[in-house]
Amino acid sequence: MSDTPSDLPRPDRELTPSLRPAAPGMEEHVDVYHRVLDHGFVAVKDYMGNDLSITQMARMSYGKGTKGVSDDRALLRYLMRHHHTSPFEGCVIKLHVKLPIFVMRQWVRHRTASLNEYSARYSVLPDEFYLPEAEHLAVQSRDNKQGRGETLAPEQADAIRARMTEDADRAFATYHQLLNADADGRPIDEDGVGIARELARLGLPLSTYTQMYWQTNLHNLMHFLRLRADPHAQWEIRVYAEKILEIMAAWVPLTFEAFRDYQSESRSFSRMEMALLKDMLAGRATLADADRYGLSKREAREFAAGLNLPDGA
Amino acid sequence: MSDTPSDLPRPDRELTPSLRPAAPGMEEHVDVYHRVLDHGFVAVKDYMGNDLSITQMARMSYGKGTKGVSDDRALLRYLMRHHHTSPFEGCVIKLHVKLPIFVMRQWVRHRTASLNEYSARYSVLPDEFYLPEAEHLAVQSRDNKQGRGETLAPEQADAIRARMTEDADRAFATYHQLLNADADGRPIDEDGVGIARELARLGLPLSTYTQMYWQTNLHNLMHFLRLRADPHAQWEIRVYAEKILEIMAAWVPLTFEAFRDYQSESRSFSRMEMALLKDMLAGRATLADADRYGLSKREAREFAAGLNLPDGA
Amino acid sequence: MSDTPSDLPRPDRELTPSLRPAAPGMEEHVDVYHRVLDHGFVAVKDYMGNDLSITQMARMSYGKGTKGVSDDRALLRYLMRHHHTSPFEGCVIKLHVKLPIFVMRQWVRHRTASLNEYSARYSVLPDEFYLPEAEHLAVQSRDNKQGRGETLAPEQADAIRARMTEDADRAFATYHQLLNADADGRPIDEDGVGIARELARLGLPLSTYTQMYWQTNLHNLMHFLRLRADPHAQWEIRVYAEKILEIMAAWVPLTFEAFRDYQSESRSFSRMEMALLKDMLAGRATLADADRYGLSKREAREFAAGLNLPDGA
Amino acid sequence: MSDTPSDLPRPDRELTPSLRPAAPGMEEHVDVYHRVLDHGFVAVKDYMGNDLSITQMARMSYGKGTKGVSDDRALLRYLMRHHHTSPFEGCVIKLHVKLPIFVMRQWVRHRTASLNEYSARYSVLPDEFYLPEAEHLAVQSRDNKQGRGETLAPEQADAIRARMTEDADRAFATYHQLLNADADGRPIDEDGVGIARELARLGLPLSTYTQMYWQTNLHNLMHFLRLRADPHAQWEIRVYAEKILEIMAAWVPLTFEAFRDYQSESRSFSRMEMALLKDMLAGRATLADADRYGLSKREAREFAAGLNLPDGA
Repeated sequence: MSDTPSDLPRPDRELTPSLRPAAPGMEEHVDVYHRVLDHGFVAVKDYMGNDLSITQMARMSYGKGTKGVSDDRALLRYLMRHHHTSPFEGCVIKLHVKLPIFVMRQWVRHRTASLNEYSARYSVLPDEFYLPEAEHLAVQSRDNKQGRGETLAPEQADAIRARMTEDADRAFATYHQLLNADADGRPIDEDGVGIARELARLGLPLSTYTQMYWQTNLHNLMHFLRLRADPHAQWEIRVYAEKILEIMAAWVPLTFEAFRDYQSESRSFSRMEMALLKDMLAGRATLADADRYGLSKREAREFAAGLNLPDGA
Repeated sequence: MSDTPSDLPRPDRELTPSLRPAAPGMEEHVDVYHRVLDHGFVAVKDYMGNDLSITQMARMSYGKGTKGVSDDRALLRYLMRHHHTSPFEGCVIKLHVKLPIFVMRQWVRHRTASLNEYSARYSVLPDEFYLPEAEHLAVQSRDNKQGRGETLAPEQADAIRARMTEDADRAFATYHQLLNADADGRPIDEDGVGIARELARLGLPLSTYTQMYWQTNLHNLMHFLRLRADPHAQWEIRVYAEKILEIMAAWVPLTFEAFRDYQSESRSFSRMEMALLKDMLAGRATLADADRYGLSKREAREFAAGLNLPDGA
Repeated sequence: MSDTPSDLPRPDRELTPSLRPAAPGMEEHVDVYHRVLDHGFVAVKDYMGNDLSITQMARMSYGKGTKGVSDDRALLRYLMRHHHTSPFEGCVIKLHVKLPIFVMRQWVRHRTASLNEYSARYSVLPDEFYLPEAEHLAVQSRDNKQGRGETLAPEQADAIRARMTEDADRAFATYHQLLNADADGRPIDEDGVGIARELARLGLPLSTYTQMYWQTNLHNLMHFLRLRADPHAQWEIRVYAEKILEIMAAWVPLTFEAFRDYQSESRSFSRMEMALLKDMLAGRATLADADRYGLSKREAREFAAGLNLPDGA
Repeated sequence: MSDTPSDLPRPDRELTPSLRPAAPGMEEHVDVYHRVLDHGFVAVKDYMGNDLSITQMARMSYGKGTKGVSDDRALLRYLMRHHHTSPFEGCVIKLHVKLPIFVMRQWVRHRTASLNEYSARYSVLPDEFYLPEAEHLAVQSRDNKQGRGETLAPEQADAIRARMTEDADRAFATYHQLLNADADGRPIDEDGVGIARELARLGLPLSTYTQMYWQTNLHNLMHFLRLRADPHAQWEIRVYAEKILEIMAAWVPLTFEAFRDYQSESRSFSRMEMALLKDMLAGRATLADADRYGLSKREAREFAAGLNLPDGA
């Protein structure tokens, strides 16, 4: 995660005094457009709540029952640890995101969010598509059916990028031909007619950029981040998730810390793994017994990796 | 709807400058506790967005397609009229509400919201219950299975209020006995023990007050208001809905106006009603033909009432 | 809507006796693959509930309060008319749908549904894309920013179809090249390597077919149908919605009828339209007064059209 | 969990042949009313899907990518282990539940479900309230702010039960007085009038029984069960959850087993716990170092308990 500010100009916007709770670290992000991928961005357009508004909600629920937990950080950690998720719903973030359509298609699977997308039925899409950098072009992974393996050789990567560019250029040329409008909206053939925008777009590639306003609450945002900042997520959505993690850290620093400690860097052990673990700690078993405890080969390997155990232990 | 400010003290809270869009009329409501019923209240704790943030979202979706609609009011009315609901989801409100449990039970049926309720497992409930004013005590309605008819005679109302008070007092007395704690938390019997709070509450009446933080977006809020500010809603939840309508009018005045014009004061006509209406306007039918168009007696009566038609037309 | 059965073979599947309520008309649809567009389909994979299970739920809610409504059809119509939506949630449908990606992107906007889509990260997409028939290629509508106007001349349509085919063929050729696998999965270059599936697909067109299992309840299905079987919906999603309407009619015939009467063929009038309508029926106003009642020109035009009024009345 | 069948009579219902996938074990439960608490019950009214319909959905998503996983049990375990939750949404259950209002109030917090509740505005509530058995009356727990401690002495329990009964009887007597209707609906005072049902109920206790149809998908059901069959849940909702667990085991036995192995009996370790665990397994730390790794006293205690470590290790 980079911590550099946007290289896009931040619009002048006036500070408005408000009685609402603000988050100082988040104010630094409002309307800042962070570049992601070659033509994409993420920007905070609005937000609601901060670390203290989460604990305020929790304190109301528990009534005098929270007298003991005087410290907000401790209370936030307690909530996160015990999956008391509803107070986190009290914080909301609204983002403006520009992203390739294939990334958008993964993003919308998160249903508990509000979104408004640019409509290619109403308006013409700009000629922008995602072209992977050479270092992100990789072969199909052999052991991960949904992932990437080694990076390509530079010449092969260059050839592929050239081919991708050529195809996309051709698709956008067809798009304009069908619309009978160039990139500035001027007719290509003065006497011709263009077909409906909703049809002209059919041939555009999945790498075409679109944009949206996306809004969700902090509880659902953390769910999004757990899945999309994960190494199993496609790299192109992960870079968005990582930028949003950075924004979250500025917004609700105490929640962010608790999220890392109890969620994103936690690990769950199955019933079988727990049985093995107990016996290993009691000196009654070793990793070699994994099979006997019901772990599959793959589970045993991941168990060992998660605990830094020598594979052949 | 009264427009009087709260008679409860507003806490001193500092104004914080923020880059976020504010709603001037809503700032007047932040942290103001509006009394509802005998011991209840509604207060805005936080909010996000205003009329212009709704049109901003819509303009992004439509791209240059909204060039024609330069006027924000016109665009908001267009969105409302055509049920383009997603831009309204971009506004969020967080309320602190104190309300009787039987009202809460109706409120939680609105699922697309976040809520945190006071926990009677963690903490002791205060001795507060809702006692209807004499003028709100009414007989069962004869034609409306879920409603009220005429108000009771004053003496009958007084007798009922006395009985309700006596029963509730008794229930709270039992509550404290079971907890072995008086209203200030002091043990009643120094050597006794109290049963668990989660059990002691079992006998408390449905009129007992609870409280919650409730948060929803403007789209879902309008749905709530359509149902709960309606004459078919129980009066005790309607007074909350009416107070919130007042708050909404201050928050997003243009949206509020469009909501009234295209939703809360609109009326829907069925396929059969439309056929009748067309023929009536063309002079080919009268209300007396309603039956022939497939309207039930009740539908015909409501059709006439909705259009101010003389019943015997 | 055609009522022809599928021209795709229906798999042999055994009848299993069950205590669950069945819907005879729906049994005719289970596992029948209805063709939609050139390569798409819709098929019912499973369902739950029928007309009577809706009234059963409603009767439980109302208790003895529904004694009066002995007739199931009348009760269903009452529920639909008064927007008592929750009993309709008790019916569920699970569909298998094959559809172009640009249609899928509209479909997923309906968030209150469960879906599983074919993953182009795990598996290779077949070489199938949507090519509009000549008669569905139309110019951009002038008055409807998101719609189509007149159909193209046959020669122009043919030229466009040829261009679309050529571009899509090229995109799929690139796809296979990048995967280093032909349509049967055999390597193109025995010594070469393919890039990751998640990257190879970037250049595929939005017209590429994907497939999904989509499941929703009847309440949300009706919302989907209201929006997507509407003339404002893009034709390519409308044909799916129309096929599903046909399925719904077979599944819950009484609900379908009520849906048509009170929802899909109903019409809503705004506060201003209601005022005008009342005065027109009382002979105190004519369409020419629309402006005075606050209707915009467009609203007046649509008001007249909806009521079959002569435009110049 | 008892495995006894219902002691309530099962209605005669015909077997209907259907092309839909059935779950043999679940057929045994359809329309069987299982008693819960003193007057409550749980009964399956309808269901959709089985273990194989879950894997069928997953196989469609992964395409040929699941060729390797030929075995349905292995695939289900893979889905559960990797939190691939959407295929589980393809199974749906509809329950008829009778339960005390205070339990209902906890139940409705699960928002991703459909429900229809008995309406006390439409109909009169029967005179039924929950009276805890003596062995479930317990003092407030000292270390668990929301739980119970030791059971009461029999005489104290009896006294409390008598008081609870007396209060509830009185509340129901008032209810009938206010309705001017006895339990059979006959007027108490022939010349009197009753107040509206929606008002008469205000004094009824939270222990009053209500009933509902509740429907949810298997993914959300498992979430419900994780929270409500947990020792931290109030005992009175836990008995419902445990009965539903039993039903789930009969419905989707392979999913149930995976749920137990990877979810309900799994345990999550925080970032700090993982660090400590790794070092303990490598012989570089003991439980005594917990503090140094950032575990609070309580966390250290729970860590030790979860791993069967001697407290003073």
